[in-house]
Amino acid sequence: MSITEKRHTDPERAQSRRRQVLDAAALCFSRSGFHGASMAEISKAAGMSAGHIYNYFDGKDAIIAAFVEEEVERVALLLRDLEQKDDPLQAIVDESDNSVDEHMAPDFWRLKLEIFAEASRNPKVAAVMVNADLRMRTQFRAIVKAGRERHGLAADDATIDGRLEATIALFQGLALRALHHPELDKAALKRAYRVGLGALLLS
Amino acid sequence: MSITEKRHTDPERAQSRRRQVLDAAALCFSRSGFHGASMAEISKAAGMSAGHIYNYFDGKDAIIAAFVEEEVERVALLLRDLEQKDDPLQAIVDESDNSVDEHMAPDFWRLKLEIFAEASRNPKVAAVMVNADLRMRTQFRAIVKAGRERHGLAADDATIDGRLEATIALFQGLALRALHHPELDKAALKRAYRVGLGALLLS
Repeated sequence: MSITEKRHTDPERAQSRRRQVLDAAALCFSRSGFHGASMAEISKAAGMSAGHIYNYFDGKDAIIAAFVEEEVERVALLLRDLEQKDDPLQAIVDESDNSVDEHMAPDFWRLKLEIFAEASRNPKVAAVMVNADLRMRTQFRAIVKAGRERHGLAADDATIDGRLEATIALFQGLALRALHHPELDKAALKRAYRVGLGALLLS
Repeated sequence: MSITEKRHTDPERAQSRRRQVLDAAALCFSRSGFHGASMAEISKAAGMSAGHIYNYFDGKDAIIAAFVEEEVERVALLLRDLEQKDDPLQAIVDESDNSVDEHMAPDFWRLKLEIFAEASRNPKVAAVMVNADLRMRTQFRAIVKAGRERHGLAADDATIDGRLEATIALFQGLALRALHHPELDKAALKRAYRVGLGALLLS
């Protein structure tokens, strides 16, 4: 079930080549879908031979796993930053305008939807997503629990788990709103998100 | 841009044949993805020749359009039912356990994710989705507006639009939680949804 990444001796050069493949793959997946995009199309977009790409990734599943890992690292940084704040839960509410913008950026949500669809039918990709979600959730859960205890709010396991899931659903659902309602009033949405997040995290 | 459905003289028989194709297509899309599923695969699963299927649907885009239209009809019925209630907004909160279950049923969310991914790269399918969302949203918006006015809550356009989008995001996000966290504590999630929905609709 493991989707391995191959290792190289010159880490800097390998890193830059991997980046080149990932950027090309993101473009091809958004354009043709995960199934529609062939390794030949990706190699053309990356300006690299397919054989060369296989030095870095075992195939399309491994490319998706790399995207998911990048997202885990991005979220881990955000959460570490949040942990340093005086009042992390209030900070999530106060800074939710930025989070909304991030989740509704077209490059962000288009690639996400492609990965989600693949995960819904490919058990290897699903396992990668489930594992990534668990790691992000564990880190986020500790913040929510500590924050609620600090505010003197209910912090039993069920309350924490429920609030956590609903909060994540609210953010992940933004990709679907961007798809279904491209012209939505973002300023109005952001005001509503502050209300919803405030209720889920701080009540 | 129109994805037309072909018309037939024997409506009952045509209806049952269309159903047969849609059930087969749902199975094939979930198994192989929209791109991976060929009309040949769908015709095999439906026990019908591909030529026969083309009597009912112009192609895979038209099949997706039919799924979307079924969803519009399902939601329209639910909303009409809601409109009859004494307090529709309170009813949304009180009955949200059922809505959560519906959105997290595997057959429901797997097909949805497949359609969402296709819509993110196929402008014809995207146009169908955007139009369907507009029709459902318009009906839902009237309920939210009347309900908030009745409760003496802010009911200006921006407030209504924001609360509406956040509420829909919360429900649509459930498909993504089901994918990422199959073992989640549903009872805890439902309690949190009542809190989130109550804040978005009734505060």
